[in-house]
Amino acid sequence: MIEKYPSKLLEDAVEAIGTLPGVGHRSALRLALHLLGQPQDNVHHFTAAINNLVDGVHYCKECRMISDSDTCSICSDPTRDHKTICVVESVRDVMSIENTGQYKGVYHVLGGIISPINGIGPSDLTIKELVERLRTLQGQAVEVILALSGDVEGETTSFYIYRQIERLGVKVTSLARGLGFGDDLEYADSLTLGRSIVNRIEFKP
Amino acid sequence: MIEKYPSKLLEDAVEAIGTLPGVGHRSALRLALHLLGQPQDNVHHFTAAINNLVDGVHYCKECRMISDSDTCSICSDPTRDHKTICVVESVRDVMSIENTGQYKGVYHVLGGIISPINGIGPSDLTIKELVERLRTLQGQAVEVILALSGDVEGETTSFYIYRQIERLGVKVTSLARGLGFGDDLEYADSLTLGRSIVNRIEFKP
Repeated sequence: MIEKYPSKLLEDAVEAIGTLPGVGHRSALRLALHLLGQPQDNVHHFTAAINNLVDGVHYCKECRMISDSDTCSICSDPTRDHKTICVVESVRDVMSIENTGQYKGVYHVLGGIISPINGIGPSDLTIKELVERLRTLQGQAVEVILALSGDVEGETTSFYIYRQIERLGVKVTSLARGLGFGDDLEYADSLTLGRSIVNRIEFKP
Repeated sequence: MIEKYPSKLLEDAVEAIGTLPGVGHRSALRLALHLLGQPQDNVHHFTAAINNLVDGVHYCKECRMISDSDTCSICSDPTRDHKTICVVESVRDVMSIENTGQYKGVYHVLGGIISPINGIGPSDLTIKELVERLRTLQGQAVEVILALSGDVEGETTSFYIYRQIERLGVKVTSLARGLGFGDDLEYADSLTLGRSIVNRIEFKP
């Protein structure tokens, strides 16, 4: 534990850096002294990049994805299927799915997941916006993919959303669950393995 | 590997954060999205603390320690022994020694260590300033403690400094080396154990 700082400025910087997740007191001091050893211009560039992000970022008015303009590059892409909407928890999930190159629909970013323990309820998420969005598409053959995590909170959120949108006449699907490609049976958890047998699929050679 | 960013601002911020030591691409993205989820004021406070540090920090004109003014709190403290100068590699070493509460002398921060592999020579360090400082104290009973690390680079630097200051008539000491307090003989490395026997000290019950 470092108790005494030679400089108030250093102490303030260490305290600020220490607010980052996963950065303890010692790491914060190390990072502060690292920045102090860099050319001033580099550090200004570093802090400006962060300020520019939080000051300048937009959220897509369609899908709530972060974007440089009011409509994100996915929602403004006419080659994407705008009637298939993949509901995800976060920006990072969109990036992960985009990186697979396998999905040609659009997204809806919830901005979190229902979690009573963390004080996050349905009204903190963009569920109302999703319902609005689906209403404007009513009468068209819309599919909503619930691509949330498989834990209790993810399942709860999926179920909540399902109850909100079932009467809108949309097709609701969820991600396939089963053994990962290349997975060894021996090391699979029994829940996943059990479900994989029950929900077995046709063999396509 | 994340290849595609939904926003140039996010990409710039991730790139900037990724320049920190020990922060990879994925961690940088995680930190950028964390900052994006914070209130804007908190982020501005975070970046301002860093800018204030690099823009406002002073280096003590005596010992080169970082400080909020031209003379650090240690060098300006009349109760410290200004004729005992502990030579250390970095600011962090000063903080470590200060935290022991065992040292009442002053410091001299080298700002690094002689390391040909990293392109750091004696002229990159504050050795010249140390020699100057000792010259102004000539005729007085000055002690210089070489408190550098025990590896090859530390030993080389200690030796180099010794050669520079030996003709100034100062007493030169170095940190005691031996088993740590509470160390188990069984797990001590043989070099340390061997030296501990050769350099044994009088038993003080």
